[in-house]
Amino acid sequence: MVNIGIVGVGLVGSELVSQILRSSYKNAMKVVALSTSQKMILSDSEYKSLSISQSEDIRSAVVQTGIAANLDQFASYLASSKQHSVIIDCTASEEVARLYPSWLRSGLSVVTPNKKGFSSSLELFKEIKEITTDKKAPLVYHEATVGAGLPVLSTLTDLVKTGDEIVRIEGIFSGTLSYLFNSFSSLTNSSGQKFSEIVSIAKSLGYTEPDPRDDLNGMDVARKVVICGRLAGLDLDLSTLPVENIVPKDLQSIQSTEEFMNKLPEYDDHFSKLNKEALDSNQVLRYVGTVDVQGGQSGVKLIKCPSSHPFASLQGSDNIIKFTTKYFPNGIVIQGAGAGAAVTAYGIFTDLIKIQERVEGF
Amino acid sequence: MVNIGIVGVGLVGSELVSQILRSSYKNAMKVVALSTSQKMILSDSEYKSLSISQSEDIRSAVVQTGIAANLDQFASYLASSKQHSVIIDCTASEEVARLYPSWLRSGLSVVTPNKKGFSSSLELFKEIKEITTDKKAPLVYHEATVGAGLPVLSTLTDLVKTGDEIVRIEGIFSGTLSYLFNSFSSLTNSSGQKFSEIVSIAKSLGYTEPDPRDDLNGMDVARKVVICGRLAGLDLDLSTLPVENIVPKDLQSIQSTEEFMNKLPEYDDHFSKLNKEALDSNQVLRYVGTVDVQGGQSGVKLIKCPSSHPFASLQGSDNIIKFTTKYFPNGIVIQGAGAGAAVTAYGIFTDLIKIQERVEGF
Repeated sequence: MVNIGIVGVGLVGSELVSQILRSSYKNAMKVVALSTSQKMILSDSEYKSLSISQSEDIRSAVVQTGIAANLDQFASYLASSKQHSVIIDCTASEEVARLYPSWLRSGLSVVTPNKKGFSSSLELFKEIKEITTDKKAPLVYHEATVGAGLPVLSTLTDLVKTGDEIVRIEGIFSGTLSYLFNSFSSLTNSSGQKFSEIVSIAKSLGYTEPDPRDDLNGMDVARKVVICGRLAGLDLDLSTLPVENIVPKDLQSIQSTEEFMNKLPEYDDHFSKLNKEALDSNQVLRYVGTVDVQGGQSGVKLIKCPSSHPFASLQGSDNIIKFTTKYFPNGIVIQGAGAGAAVTAYGIFTDLIKIQERVEGF
Repeated sequence: MVNIGIVGVGLVGSELVSQILRSSYKNAMKVVALSTSQKMILSDSEYKSLSISQSEDIRSAVVQTGIAANLDQFASYLASSKQHSVIIDCTASEEVARLYPSWLRSGLSVVTPNKKGFSSSLELFKEIKEITTDKKAPLVYHEATVGAGLPVLSTLTDLVKTGDEIVRIEGIFSGTLSYLFNSFSSLTNSSGQKFSEIVSIAKSLGYTEPDPRDDLNGMDVARKVVICGRLAGLDLDLSTLPVENIVPKDLQSIQSTEEFMNKLPEYDDHFSKLNKEALDSNQVLRYVGTVDVQGGQSGVKLIKCPSSHPFASLQGSDNIIKFTTKYFPNGIVIQGAGAGAAVTAYGIFTDLIKIQERVEGF
């Protein structure tokens, strides 16, 4: 039996609660604390499950009936239980991530889809790692920070633990950039649309960030590369990782999103030329992040993939990640949806099950 | 700290010992017992690690210095330890698999790449499952029974545990049949070779069983389908699962392998015709196992895959497995080497780490 406290009750947090309630863990995993940025609800001194129905709008319930949010109070409530407690950080906040070391030291395990704690300051990452390598220390799992619910980090962790030598990790880590280039650059299914048209469609479908430049600048991919690299033993840093920002130079400093979208068509020829060069040599354009464990050439860039490469036949907005190792010289490839509330919550849930099983022991 | 006893010290068992000795688990996982079908070695009453050097031929050491093999004695030696012990069954024996329930009842965990315990008698499978669902029961892990070290069963287990609804599991589960059809039926890299020629090359490279009919009859794939199906909750049975034996009818009853190989070319036209039909409609031939959880059409057969399907662009002898579920309607795809001593031992090792972590608890 574990207690669960969720910080950040948006789409993912709510979906997680509903997945737990629908599962066979509904009694073993007790949701006893919920917090938005403004309000929070803590259960009683016996850590009874909060009474939440599956259909309920959980966020509204917290906002309407909660007390003022206070993360110190939230964490110490959880840490005071005799049962093991887990904080789930469903925010994207760096400030919240900086609290992990103190949470861990108070005995709480942490599960999160928030990339900040593992891809920002290397010092913070190492501090978290140091606290959790102790034998009886609480656990930190963050499967959903890379590829959402896909078994990417669990596989990487197994490779590291068994002592396999990781040569390279390559991936299309962004569902948005996957969609854009799978649509734009294909040897078999080309839509013939211009790059700006595809960006515009993706934006209107909600596939991009409100400002698509937040996808096109590669920073989200870079964070995932940093996370994979650090788990593989490299001291990667966001500030020094080579990242190709594919937003044309002159459009990077424009303030308004609308103006950016209006001007993007002026650069269609640029993207079409790159695409033609690729297709003419039986290749396609893909936006790929690489952890080059042995060669030191980690980075994020737009590259040409030969048609036989598994990344070339990717469709829709799937993520794909390939591990090349000593035991797997031809690679382990993992592919699937890497974004969305259901699969992100699923990734968190698989981490929670691992903690639950270790708490249970035999 | 766990004790390890290995039954069956061939390529995989020896590779496993050497992977453990090279890893950071060399002190936490103590190999204290080894058995071949003839001889065994047990350590002392303090369960000290057997002194094995990495370079040693372990099998010869057991055969030369061991006492007469006796699996009852082997298991009760392990079960008498105060520390948790794991038996690793590296045989392919059904007789050994039938011992799992008694091993488990004596408190031993079981890890194995042996498919027999999970794909033969449904009664045995259910007995194993029943013993291990108890909260404080020992564990059974068998990742390496499907796709060797690929994270196939761990992913399937996570999907089941979280309560995701599995719609379908499809896969190319045999490295041999993957190689044969990837070479024979390809839209981009066709070798132009006849089917019998490719079988003959594969046989000479050691990619097939000594008699290739043991691959072509589909029974190995069927066992893997049964295992996946049972883990997904279906009562599949080898004797009733529809399995397409692609050995031509008249060649099935021939005694000698040589005669079979000599006659196979007479059927090249049959396979070429199937291939042409597929290629003409932009499809390729693939030998696919399917667990149809919701539609009841599980089975193993040679099918045509459209060029856009991830199975169509498979290369070499990779396995590929696709899970279609409620949370992942477009599927999770896992691809990579699914056979060989290094990746099989790796799969066993990842299972051992899970047990080790649960024994450690927090």
